[in-house]
Amino acid sequence: MKKFLNSADTYLTDALAGFAAAHPDLAVDLENRVVTRARGAVPGKVGLVSGGGSGHEPLHTGFVGEGMLDAACPGEVFTSPVPDQVVAAVRAADSGAGVVLVVKNYTGDVMNFDLAAELAGDEGVRVETVLVDDDVAVQDSTFTAGRRGTGATLLVEKIAGAAAVRGDSLEAVAEIGRRVNAASRSFAVALTAGTTPEAGRPGFDLPADEIEVGVGIHGEPGRRREKLRPAREIVADMVEAILEDRAPGAGEEVIALVNGLGGTPLSELYLVYGEVARLLGERGVRISRSLVGDYVTSLDMAGCSVTLCGADAELVELWDAPVSTPGLRWGM
Amino acid sequence: MKKFLNSADTYLTDALAGFAAAHPDLAVDLENRVVTRARGAVPGKVGLVSGGGSGHEPLHTGFVGEGMLDAACPGEVFTSPVPDQVVAAVRAADSGAGVVLVVKNYTGDVMNFDLAAELAGDEGVRVETVLVDDDVAVQDSTFTAGRRGTGATLLVEKIAGAAAVRGDSLEAVAEIGRRVNAASRSFAVALTAGTTPEAGRPGFDLPADEIEVGVGIHGEPGRRREKLRPAREIVADMVEAILEDRAPGAGEEVIALVNGLGGTPLSELYLVYGEVARLLGERGVRISRSLVGDYVTSLDMAGCSVTLCGADAELVELWDAPVSTPGLRWGM
Repeated sequence: MKKFLNSADTYLTDALAGFAAAHPDLAVDLENRVVTRARGAVPGKVGLVSGGGSGHEPLHTGFVGEGMLDAACPGEVFTSPVPDQVVAAVRAADSGAGVVLVVKNYTGDVMNFDLAAELAGDEGVRVETVLVDDDVAVQDSTFTAGRRGTGATLLVEKIAGAAAVRGDSLEAVAEIGRRVNAASRSFAVALTAGTTPEAGRPGFDLPADEIEVGVGIHGEPGRRREKLRPAREIVADMVEAILEDRAPGAGEEVIALVNGLGGTPLSELYLVYGEVARLLGERGVRISRSLVGDYVTSLDMAGCSVTLCGADAELVELWDAPVSTPGLRWGM
Repeated sequence: MKKFLNSADTYLTDALAGFAAAHPDLAVDLENRVVTRARGAVPGKVGLVSGGGSGHEPLHTGFVGEGMLDAACPGEVFTSPVPDQVVAAVRAADSGAGVVLVVKNYTGDVMNFDLAAELAGDEGVRVETVLVDDDVAVQDSTFTAGRRGTGATLLVEKIAGAAAVRGDSLEAVAEIGRRVNAASRSFAVALTAGTTPEAGRPGFDLPADEIEVGVGIHGEPGRRREKLRPAREIVADMVEAILEDRAPGAGEEVIALVNGLGGTPLSELYLVYGEVARLLGERGVRISRSLVGDYVTSLDMAGCSVTLCGADAELVELWDAPVSTPGLRWGM
């Protein structure tokens, strides 16, 4: 394994310390592992909190800031944050208007965020939870009952974040988040496995000419392994899997995310996006907004995911609203 | 080799077609391989043009837009654009106020951009050239007489771009660009080699426990190979090499860029940034601005570069000026 690290033990702390040094407008509590805005909770605004195992950067820490998250709690690599961490994040994000938790559907996350929501409730904080489960590849998976939460998490955090800025109530922000998740579907393909600092070797074995179709963001198995094929064929299968599960309604447009898993060059992601755009065009599906890049990664895994979110005018307006975070920034 | 591609022959065209689909505010001439702003040259503003071999995305195509480049001309992977391409880009960028070419110091680029400047001059376009040669690792290199141009290219394009928006004259924009280059130094380390679609295998052989110290962005050899060491030791050598070559003057602050080469997770880049910040702090060098991410890549190479640019108040103000491109965006 070749990585920039001092030791596997200090990897996360060292990375968070560097993140803190690079972003003075954010506050990083290294001991409790909570990232918040340096200026604290925004008075009157519903707070938005997310978290999960590390290794998916910029998700979630990189999405803390104006227009998106108020706090993030990163666990160890591919490991849920503990309930105390989540509670600390909720406390930091609450200005009295309540807090929405965005939780990816993995057993550990669901359990720990549920417990944290209960504990925060006991402290008098009103909490709503949005569960993200957009990955159509498999029904249950290694760490998951039901579908996995992947690329749609970015869309939920962005759009619910904008709803909170707009002044929506706790229930309304949660409702918008759930609407985004319900309208989103994702599918991922891995060309190589990612390597965690702790294990020191690739998370799974993939022959030199094979790909994992439907892979999870922790390297969980997908639908099948197959020989590498031309991108247009791989992407056609990805888009097909998504549209089979949920085709946009008549006149509905989509927000399209082509997301790199960490080790794939940007030019290849654009190539994939070109195929997605062509395929959707052939089916009469209009892409109203798009995003191409590394947003929900799996360490250094080569591969990508495609997420399509059926979006009405309101969701597009919230997507377009100003955002200023380390990982996503426009309009301000 | 596992990549998302239809064929090695169509790789660049396919990637550019996807780029065009994703960015409707840009115009992509697939035949001539020139990327411009869809709205054309900005009346009265000095034009800014850059280009070079592909494989370094988002550089340069991803930096076309408000506050940065007016046009980019991508060559084949790791291959200079041809003079006709550069001339087409210059034509598109010129509104009558002249055009500044930002050229990385590689023999092919220098030759083709020089010829293009001459041809454009014959057409009546006033052209100034800014040569970028910030890489302190080696004096001459595989494709280079003198030092290689690497990470500082981003800084030159951003800061000269802002000077052009400010209304600076052709000569003044070029002068700002040269000042940025003169104040910038970079150093890169590779953990793995990148793979070009054409060759289909890693560009060089690096044993499983070794790193290339001082690598170029085309995989050119650096100063030495050595065993992988803790990040703090590697980064100390990188910062030392930079400061030995140019230490910031008394009271001078720096803009610090920690740039991923394509295959390294963001969390490791932050870890590296933390070491850079610590080392500079110990030497009393203040970082006024920083940027961490993949900006000047080498396909899927794992590794990173550090660039430090001594910056006075004017350069920092130009750095902070609004920019809106696919690869760099703030303030608007």
